[in-house]
Amino acid sequence: MEGSARQVTGTGTPSPWDELPVRDELRGKSPYGAPQLDVPVRLNTNENPYPLPEPLVARIAERVAEAARHLNRYPDRDAVELRTELAAYLTRTTGYEVTAARVWAANGSNEVLQQLLQTFGGPGRTAVGFEPSYSMHALISRGTGTGWISGPRHDDFTIDVEAAERVIAERRPDVVFVCSPNNPTGTAVEAETVLRLYEAAQAAKPSMVVVDEAYGEFSHRPSLLPLLEGRPHLVVSRTMSKAFGAAGLRLGYLAAHPAVVDAVQLVRLPYHLSAVTQATALAALEHTDTLLGYVEQLKTERDRIVTELRAMGCEVTDSDANFVQFGRFDDSHTAWQAILDHGVLVRDNGVPGWLRVTAGTPEENDAFLDAVRAIRKESNS
Amino acid sequence: MEGSARQVTGTGTPSPWDELPVRDELRGKSPYGAPQLDVPVRLNTNENPYPLPEPLVARIAERVAEAARHLNRYPDRDAVELRTELAAYLTRTTGYEVTAARVWAANGSNEVLQQLLQTFGGPGRTAVGFEPSYSMHALISRGTGTGWISGPRHDDFTIDVEAAERVIAERRPDVVFVCSPNNPTGTAVEAETVLRLYEAAQAAKPSMVVVDEAYGEFSHRPSLLPLLEGRPHLVVSRTMSKAFGAAGLRLGYLAAHPAVVDAVQLVRLPYHLSAVTQATALAALEHTDTLLGYVEQLKTERDRIVTELRAMGCEVTDSDANFVQFGRFDDSHTAWQAILDHGVLVRDNGVPGWLRVTAGTPEENDAFLDAVRAIRKESNS
Repeated sequence: MEGSARQVTGTGTPSPWDELPVRDELRGKSPYGAPQLDVPVRLNTNENPYPLPEPLVARIAERVAEAARHLNRYPDRDAVELRTELAAYLTRTTGYEVTAARVWAANGSNEVLQQLLQTFGGPGRTAVGFEPSYSMHALISRGTGTGWISGPRHDDFTIDVEAAERVIAERRPDVVFVCSPNNPTGTAVEAETVLRLYEAAQAAKPSMVVVDEAYGEFSHRPSLLPLLEGRPHLVVSRTMSKAFGAAGLRLGYLAAHPAVVDAVQLVRLPYHLSAVTQATALAALEHTDTLLGYVEQLKTERDRIVTELRAMGCEVTDSDANFVQFGRFDDSHTAWQAILDHGVLVRDNGVPGWLRVTAGTPEENDAFLDAVRAIRKESNS
Repeated sequence: MEGSARQVTGTGTPSPWDELPVRDELRGKSPYGAPQLDVPVRLNTNENPYPLPEPLVARIAERVAEAARHLNRYPDRDAVELRTELAAYLTRTTGYEVTAARVWAANGSNEVLQQLLQTFGGPGRTAVGFEPSYSMHALISRGTGTGWISGPRHDDFTIDVEAAERVIAERRPDVVFVCSPNNPTGTAVEAETVLRLYEAAQAAKPSMVVVDEAYGEFSHRPSLLPLLEGRPHLVVSRTMSKAFGAAGLRLGYLAAHPAVVDAVQLVRLPYHLSAVTQATALAALEHTDTLLGYVEQLKTERDRIVTELRAMGCEVTDSDANFVQFGRFDDSHTAWQAILDHGVLVRDNGVPGWLRVTAGTPEENDAFLDAVRAIRKESNS
């Protein structure tokens, strides 16, 4: 996690910050978030490099204008039209039929996960994830008072199923996070692995298993969504940030048993999803085919990055996402800085020896590959 | 609170809902929210009856289209432009100068309050409010694991300051909520009262005092914002839902010491505020003068409702908001239904003997006043 310590005073005089009655566990913490540096090529936050096409921009303006004519009224609290269209999208792209009653949406998948933890986690309960993984799983767990258990992975970043089963049996967590493809490693999780973890979680408690498919559309493999069949304690979360090129929209969603959708409505803030967010998401869903075309381009570029980095002699983790984990470096922060000195911002996720690069446009990826080539030459000279 | 019990089964067979491992305190609860009935005149949710003017709708479409061209990128995580404009609005309308560093924004004032409770409340901590008041204060407290203390009011719905001071001294809450004008009673709180509660809260702990001014623009009295001067543990929250006629936008904000703004950033979900929300709010702020013109019309209508209800012989609580609490009824639910039978939906907030009506357009208010006249005649005949 990047970030600097907050409010270093050191004068001996208590500052208003020091005297503010914040919760003890927040003292000395920094807000989560990647540094936003002004650099020519930014491949650090797994954004989709392709701006929305102009016809979609026009359609968003049109649908938002329609929504704005009723903006004095509260939005549809249950976002029924949006959930219906998201369900249709999932059904069409995964072949597994889901309905609006099985879909829930919120402001980014982070809010979806927060609502799940408020419902199924919280004080006196625990969640487990297999790290390194998406660091917000641990942060949102802590933010909701849910105890966090760090589970293991193999050296190749796949989940160590036997070890995971042991952790679940011994610690009996209430929520099990499985990120597939995994951020920041890019690793896809086998359906068989999810099934074994689900069985272990049911035997232990029963617990909820949350499969985070934020990068699902970029995978070589089919979605894990069909595993929902007959498994009421399984949840699959998704986002429009990546595949739909809409990180600025903040639209995350989940698919699960209708009872799970009923349950999160007990903790969601009323009218949490604005009318403009619903209108914009609906417009984007009308343009799904175009946007999924960009996904195909990015998958090709992602595979090219893997191939070219390996050809240079880098170690690269197999990737099913729109980013690539590469290394190894004796000191990943030094390597991160050296690449930045060549005008390319990648991400140091704190995995020792490894860095993560987002697949950008072909030109951006060329700039990145040139930068790595250059720093390898420098370090060998 | 209206709402029906969830998942009544009664067959003896456990349903997926029964077996879902939700937190114990959520079992048997219903989602918060007023019933949305299809009725000609809906005066139940304190919405502004005036749609946004067409030039503003056009400007929203324009600014959202600009934002949509960068929607593949994450939004400004710190919403600096929006916070700057909100600060300028507060400075201009209250005469008390605040800067962006003292303002924070989120998806509705509910999310602002949730972030404050995550920062200053939470497990092992408590919050107090003086009831009847905005029921989300208690609900969000419970949702964040914050213990809730219900403080008293006088029979005329003003805060009983001596009793409130005693509660604060004895129970030492971490957060003190003061809603002014108070929802659902319409009661404004004197600056002197806030100062006494602030002093009591500092003597007891120190604790945070949150003044909820969601309806501040409709008050006969000046904002309590200038009380922020020299009081780092005071927070004033606001919303664009009411005065800006933008309930569908979900834009709440707060003003406080910069250290408070730093602190809530430790719990906010990263990129919580979408680019389309920020763009829409900025467009609305460009049209502040027009929208505040509607506020003046609503204040006139609100005062007319008070006068006419009193002329009919109703009891009416003094109102500084865009709604009016009226009574008294032997059975407020029966009265609520009788008014509904005349095609007007008002709100039963569960305050025994009282109902709440939102100030609508002159025509809507006439329909409401006619309905009350009719039911009074019926009950006297």
